[in-house]
Amino acid sequence: MSADQKVLSSLRPGVATEPMSGIVDTYIYAMGKPDVIPLWVGQGHLPTPAFIAEPAARALAAGETFYTHQRGLPELRQSLAQYHARAYGKAFDAENFTVCQSGMQSIQLALQAILSPGDEVILPVPAWTNYAATLRLAGMKPVEVALDFDGKSWTLDPARLFAAITPRTRAILINTPGNPLGHVLSHQVLQAILDECRRRRLWIIADEVYGRFYYSGNKPGQPAPSFLDICDTEERIFFCNTFSKNWAMTGWRVGWCMAPKALGPILENLVQYNTSGVTTFLQRGCIAALDEGDAFLADQISQAEQGRRIICERLAKAPGVRFAWPEGAFYLFFKVEGATDSAALSRTLIDQARVGLAPGNAFGQAGQGFLRLCFARDPAQLTEAAERLGNWLERNER
Amino acid sequence: MSADQKVLSSLRPGVATEPMSGIVDTYIYAMGKPDVIPLWVGQGHLPTPAFIAEPAARALAAGETFYTHQRGLPELRQSLAQYHARAYGKAFDAENFTVCQSGMQSIQLALQAILSPGDEVILPVPAWTNYAATLRLAGMKPVEVALDFDGKSWTLDPARLFAAITPRTRAILINTPGNPLGHVLSHQVLQAILDECRRRRLWIIADEVYGRFYYSGNKPGQPAPSFLDICDTEERIFFCNTFSKNWAMTGWRVGWCMAPKALGPILENLVQYNTSGVTTFLQRGCIAALDEGDAFLADQISQAEQGRRIICERLAKAPGVRFAWPEGAFYLFFKVEGATDSAALSRTLIDQARVGLAPGNAFGQAGQGFLRLCFARDPAQLTEAAERLGNWLERNER
Repeated sequence: MSADQKVLSSLRPGVATEPMSGIVDTYIYAMGKPDVIPLWVGQGHLPTPAFIAEPAARALAAGETFYTHQRGLPELRQSLAQYHARAYGKAFDAENFTVCQSGMQSIQLALQAILSPGDEVILPVPAWTNYAATLRLAGMKPVEVALDFDGKSWTLDPARLFAAITPRTRAILINTPGNPLGHVLSHQVLQAILDECRRRRLWIIADEVYGRFYYSGNKPGQPAPSFLDICDTEERIFFCNTFSKNWAMTGWRVGWCMAPKALGPILENLVQYNTSGVTTFLQRGCIAALDEGDAFLADQISQAEQGRRIICERLAKAPGVRFAWPEGAFYLFFKVEGATDSAALSRTLIDQARVGLAPGNAFGQAGQGFLRLCFARDPAQLTEAAERLGNWLERNER
Repeated sequence: MSADQKVLSSLRPGVATEPMSGIVDTYIYAMGKPDVIPLWVGQGHLPTPAFIAEPAARALAAGETFYTHQRGLPELRQSLAQYHARAYGKAFDAENFTVCQSGMQSIQLALQAILSPGDEVILPVPAWTNYAATLRLAGMKPVEVALDFDGKSWTLDPARLFAAITPRTRAILINTPGNPLGHVLSHQVLQAILDECRRRRLWIIADEVYGRFYYSGNKPGQPAPSFLDICDTEERIFFCNTFSKNWAMTGWRVGWCMAPKALGPILENLVQYNTSGVTTFLQRGCIAALDEGDAFLADQISQAEQGRRIICERLAKAPGVRFAWPEGAFYLFFKVEGATDSAALSRTLIDQARVGLAPGNAFGQAGQGFLRLCFARDPAQLTEAAERLGNWLERNER
């Protein structure tokens, strides 16, 4: 046995064989290749705006560089409550919110608070890569239930979701608007899930990080249908969220969760034992994002809506492409007829079309043959990317 | 059953009953009380210096606000290798380093990479609160082995450590210089532990965050004896560290780990599934800390050494106090004769002596009757605190 093998054989079982995210794989393949338009990752092209960056920089210069409240500055938790109240039209209480280091961390906190090794979590797929991997690495079991795709839309049948419940099931993880599909669950479907979870005493882990990116609302800025509209904050539901997407803060690594108040001391402990709190001075920028960021967010949503049109209209004309117009989030998930290996196709497109897309199978086997494109980008760049993709598809009609 | 009880009864077993850190308890008790000198927590009184803060603020203003390398900026990992080379007088490779969100997170990464639920970890105590709690919350078992205290010094008998090894033991966690004791393990003891772990195929989790705060060296700035001096970087040893203590960056929440290169892809995954990387622009400040921070660090160490003298000399004169002069770290751990409830004594001292100390039993039952005082503080403040404590002890001689 080599020295490396000796080391690897003495790790947690499963940890060495968990594959790298297929999105990272694409990122690495494209690295250093000139003139590739990067649409594989879920972030916009704008840096964090000054009205958010400056308060953080001022707090840093003023010496707000000491340990702070494990669950976040009280003012920040208050701003979270007020932001939710504005967006969802009802009152929220700061005590339900916990600030943490990224949306990803908020999911970790949910798993650590609720689940034990061996527990099953029902997961509609295709879904963001990180859910299943994180569950597996923690010794939990993601039970995947595929959405139906008829070539024009994705449908989640709640009955199929419930049929997957076993005595080991502890939670259902719902991401709406969904990454990578851009599908949005209706209030009717959310209510059915909530009712069943209440009946079966299951937790809902609700990842609504794209909740503001919704393109089918009646009013401008209307959030997507949300569990927030129908649930009681003190029941078994754990919301995961992040500053990343709304306010161009992907590089900040700050998120939050909303959970029943009874979990307060538990989350205080879990934050302590994961990262011991969130960077103190950055929280001043987060307050500015929430308190003064509504107009910036509206611009972000409107730009994403424009990007969606640019991409969908061009690809609708390309041969062999099938997709549902995304109702939310900022991804197009499209099928390329005849493609059987998304990862290989993604590499081919990087080399031949100079567009970087995430391979659909990174989101579960149900995504094989698909590609994911992020359209929360500069419209001029998206127009160019749409042309390159459209032209490549036309040249390579199967 | 109340709504809260329903929620609490459906969580991960053990998570709701894990007590809050006794240090947090003291912090909460002292909150809002005027004129209490806060020596309960492990941080200095200086904010992060400008030569570290400014590069971070510049990177933020320049828009370095996007996702970045999961294991840290390549330049930062290079700076970590160079910093270690300067401090330990031999070459290090950037590939062994992973940047993460706090020293606490580096311990989480170690547990997630190496251990499984049910595994035992041998832990010399009294030890930092967070080790045992984090292990318990992850379903692992801390096996505590008490150091011996003869009234003047703390001794770790390696034979007693090894006697605690069972078939479930997977690692020994060694924190030297140690929090809260300030004890420093000799090269001889470290070598004995390394030899035994090699023989028994156990991991060493080495928390050396106080490695530079050492008061018994032959040369100024000499680090404490370290596993880095004697181990091979590619064997079963996982180093946990942080920017917090050396460079007055507690509020930043950035740390690092050093592990065998074979763990690289595993740590890439684990970082992805815990926090998805470290705040991009902050890493520019971390590079400045490592590349330009040697003089600042030397001042920090020298100030801590001065604080140690101020505190130890005064308390040595007080009645009923027993302690070992700490050889490293920046804590005095002292026994008060007749004290049977450290937490109660800590509250009494907040109210009557206006000095905030961490209760010794927060560091395990072996610390009952002790108090921990952080002396990495302003000398004038420490002189005042020493007087207050000394006077209180004289007034309350038992």
